[in-house]
Amino acid sequence: MYKIKKARIFITAFFLVFSLALTACSNSSSTGLNKEQKSAVTGEKNEEYYMITFLSGMEYWKSGYKGFEDAGKFYGVKTVYTGAIQYDINQEVTVLEQIIAKKPAGIAISCMNSDALAAPIDKAISQGIPVVTFDADSPKSRRYSFLGTDNEYSGYVAAKALSEQIGSKGGEVAVITLPSQQNHEQRVEGFKKALENEYKNLKLIEIGNGKSDQTEAAKVLSGFLQLHPNLKGVFCTDATSGVGAATAVKEANKVGQVSIVSFDTERGTLDAIKSGVISASIAQGTYIMGYQAMNFLYQLKHELINPVDSWKEKKVNPLPSFVDTGVNIVTKENVDSFYIK
Amino acid sequence: MYKIKKARIFITAFFLVFSLALTACSNSSSTGLNKEQKSAVTGEKNEEYYMITFLSGMEYWKSGYKGFEDAGKFYGVKTVYTGAIQYDINQEVTVLEQIIAKKPAGIAISCMNSDALAAPIDKAISQGIPVVTFDADSPKSRRYSFLGTDNEYSGYVAAKALSEQIGSKGGEVAVITLPSQQNHEQRVEGFKKALENEYKNLKLIEIGNGKSDQTEAAKVLSGFLQLHPNLKGVFCTDATSGVGAATAVKEANKVGQVSIVSFDTERGTLDAIKSGVISASIAQGTYIMGYQAMNFLYQLKHELINPVDSWKEKKVNPLPSFVDTGVNIVTKENVDSFYIK
Repeated sequence: MYKIKKARIFITAFFLVFSLALTACSNSSSTGLNKEQKSAVTGEKNEEYYMITFLSGMEYWKSGYKGFEDAGKFYGVKTVYTGAIQYDINQEVTVLEQIIAKKPAGIAISCMNSDALAAPIDKAISQGIPVVTFDADSPKSRRYSFLGTDNEYSGYVAAKALSEQIGSKGGEVAVITLPSQQNHEQRVEGFKKALENEYKNLKLIEIGNGKSDQTEAAKVLSGFLQLHPNLKGVFCTDATSGVGAATAVKEANKVGQVSIVSFDTERGTLDAIKSGVISASIAQGTYIMGYQAMNFLYQLKHELINPVDSWKEKKVNPLPSFVDTGVNIVTKENVDSFYIK
Repeated sequence: MYKIKKARIFITAFFLVFSLALTACSNSSSTGLNKEQKSAVTGEKNEEYYMITFLSGMEYWKSGYKGFEDAGKFYGVKTVYTGAIQYDINQEVTVLEQIIAKKPAGIAISCMNSDALAAPIDKAISQGIPVVTFDADSPKSRRYSFLGTDNEYSGYVAAKALSEQIGSKGGEVAVITLPSQQNHEQRVEGFKKALENEYKNLKLIEIGNGKSDQTEAAKVLSGFLQLHPNLKGVFCTDATSGVGAATAVKEANKVGQVSIVSFDTERGTLDAIKSGVISASIAQGTYIMGYQAMNFLYQLKHELINPVDSWKEKKVNPLPSFVDTGVNIVTKENVDSFYIK
């Protein structure tokens, strides 16, 4: 998973400010509720809903937990953020097992490794604990729903953004990605299809491996810029490559001549958009993942869904199997609103 | 859209019992709430949320409105079912315009024609009325979300069901579909891919046009059965073809020798599953479409989503762009629970 390695960069910065406090809790007594929410739901205060991630100190997860927390406040229940601090599947399995032992009201989990987490997820469900996955799925498990990004489509949107930046003349473009990681391959696939079908004036001439490392990504793009002096743009399928590409473009004195479309909305990316070095980035619907995950868990826990004609009797899933949480293009125009307040 | 023509069969039966009362209303004062729901939400009783369909008397819509109604009861708001009685896009546009004039709290609409409804949908949204689409989308409109079936995947599931019915020996199979209708083409596509990739002992030898007519579909399958005496199964991508296929198999005295996998859960299909003539059917998540559509509309209306870091400021969609409401296999084992009570 791309977030994993990207985190090597962020982990140092955020470890102290965010993840030393391994679990962050909130409940309805917190501030931040508007009048509507306060009046809407009462009770259930002893219910605890958990969000579990891996590399839990990553900035990437903050927006998702914000959504989870907001929905929890609406229902007047307690939400808890936790996860494996390290990039270590055994650690994530252990965290999940510990949470199951607490008999929580529900669990939303992003899966570092889909197969390794299937058994403990199924264990939770067999004990009557609702589980949904978000951002990274465990399709072989019995989780009720997966909420995440349609990665192929996100590549399509990246092509649109790059085309808009380069303009109608078009030209040569490159991709920096993380080969062998499925979500990144899907992003490249979507990007290619978009060029074939819609943005035919963009010609993909190189695909490089950013290796989840800023310096490496910068080196790759520098090479491309030397080989292809007319290169007009690059799509970076992960945030780390995007920041690396920004360095390469600055070093080559080609800011404004080479457009960069990056991925996600970490601070480094947003800063580079603000300063005009990165043209655009693809924002995933992380808030939506967390918000609707909490909604689904509450609906399951309280058997709100089809309470009369029970779905249990039908032996069918009462929740949507997949929720495509969408992507949006971040540019200089709207970048300010993407900083987490 | 396949539901349209299928309705010719059902419309006579259900017109009197269901659609003469063009609009069906319910609010929180209705019965059917469990204790949890009653205690959960209070107030907002003057809010009206509308579900709009075409051929509004069709049995197909009942489960979707049940979901919409159930979610409305949870929030203590009024829900109303309405739509175009005829298969007439002008009529559906008129109904939508009339509902917009009432300034409702939200609208969920299934679009008979995606392009014709885009303008009135956008009009509603520009007036601050939340709109989501379900079952049949209007992708060019500014609707916040579409909740529906992944049709290609549903074809994959149909192949799985047919393979299970035919058993490990496999054999020759056929498809009866409605060519030129996109959702049906996608179902056939998924079915074909499943045979290529997974169920290699099933060999697709014929694809016929059921023409949304039971007699026609029966005739098509009778022809196939004469041409291919070893035919082991047929996938019917619409309910009408499924019932027609059942007739053909009965007439050929091949019940038990030729497996039929059909689509949807109208009474005729369920009866044929119960009597063993149809082996299985693919149930769409219609209840889920309605249930989560109502949830989304309430979340929009009350600006529950990200109330602090407003999504309006970001100019991004606060809702998932697509909700895959899933499919399930109905067989003799679970058929009883699919009859609408």
